Amino acid sequence: MNYHVLTLFPEMIEQGMGHSITGRAIKNEHIHLNVMNIRDFTENKHRKVDDYPYGGGAGMVMQPQPVYASYEKAKEIIQQQGGSKKTKVIYLTPQGRTFNQEIAKDLAKEENLIFLCGHYEGIDERVLEEIVDENISIGDYVLTGGELAALVMMDAIARLVPEVLHNDISAEIESFSDGLLEYPQYTRPVEWHGKKVPEILLSGHHANIEAWRKEQSYKRTLERRPDLLENN
Amino acid sequence: MNYHVLTLFPEMIEQGMGHSITGRAIKNEHIHLNVMNIRDFTENKHRKVDDYPYGGGAGMVMQPQPVYASYEKAKEIIQQQGGSKKTKVIYLTPQGRTFNQEIAKDLAKEENLIFLCGHYEGIDERVLEEIVDENISIGDYVLTGGELAALVMMDAIARLVPEVLHNDISAEIESFSDGLLEYPQYTRPVEWHGKKVPEILLSGHHANIEAWRKEQSYKRTLERRPDLLENN
Repeated sequence: MNYHVLTLFPEMIEQGMGHSITGRAIKNEHIHLNVMNIRDFTENKHRKVDDYPYGGGAGMVMQPQPVYASYEKAKEIIQQQGGSKKTKVIYLTPQGRTFNQEIAKDLAKEENLIFLCGHYEGIDERVLEEIVDENISIGDYVLTGGELAALVMMDAIARLVPEVLHNDISAEIESFSDGLLEYPQYTRPVEWHGKKVPEILLSGHHANIEAWRKEQSYKRTLERRPDLLENN
Repeated sequence: MNYHVLTLFPEMIEQGMGHSITGRAIKNEHIHLNVMNIRDFTENKHRKVDDYPYGGGAGMVMQPQPVYASYEKAKEIIQQQGGSKKTKVIYLTPQGRTFNQEIAKDLAKEENLIFLCGHYEGIDERVLEEIVDENISIGDYVLTGGELAALVMMDAIARLVPEVLHNDISAEIESFSDGLLEYPQYTRPVEWHGKKVPEILLSGHHANIEAWRKEQSYKRTLERRPDLLENN
């Protein structure tokens, strides 16, 4: 899996991907990260990337030229690395369809993903029309830029790339994998602050434990996210 | 606004908040960020924070003691800084209610927010019962940990804290503020790759421009997110 990120804040992407599980996946080359600073592709001497919106209004809009030039460079790199046709350009925007685990699974099958991160009041519509394959939103809230949204998507997709998760972390038994929320978990000590681990988990009776966990998952989903049950 | 984050990856939080608009807000002291490493609060010499789940299953579960001790320290710091009662503890989990712009607005009114970030297969249920006020999910996908989710929430909330956004960025005219997606934006040059900026935006006729933008917003919402219209 090759991630390419077009951004005005390259350090934010590099640092955000440099820790924990994704950091290890990059180090072990299960994932490749190529971060492009859109500002490096301006053609004016002040390295200006934005200008006032036509028609007025607050804020600045990112200009098409540097965005397009950074995209062309990413495509060039992809071609040099073997030229796979499996490339998708994703624009992170509250105006996209809402990201979920199904989309993560689909995108984990691609070879190259190019994430375009906007800032300020967005990006000139013409370059979006020209290069973007998918508009994706990570949720119904407004962020200061697309960088955190790209990091969230890259993290969720990375876990589904083979070999990224070690045996000590399970990709299978988890929230959403069967449409239910996860059951409560307990670890040592057996008593903490006067609260004991549920007796059944200490019983060693695997069938009973599994039945209890299923019931807990169902109860929790019913209480907290009944909408997930309706969709099944 | 005081953010407190309980995490095993403190650098990820500090770096993620150190850029762009949130970085400036911290520098200008509109936002205060206090990051606590849960690992610093273990009582064993190996600084171990997790153990196997009771009842079996893959993965490790975070133990209650260090999580609780880091929470107590955060509360102590809050009391030293003036002891506001307006403190909420938020656990980032796919099992929480789904974060949105309304929740961001509500949380922007708090004085102290404590974000608890889980890793591995989650956190022992007993400590969650004891300290957590709200379980929140940023969307229906699984991440490798709670850190990116905390960063997303802190970013969305920060923009709504007075004085964090400068005049050059508008918090008002934006997606979701009126239940519609934003209209397309254009900036210079007036012609790019053979595509011209829509004539109306160059007309200088403000009422017509506003009507066009409203229509574009409505059309775009109908095409991309009809569910937003149904909710109104």
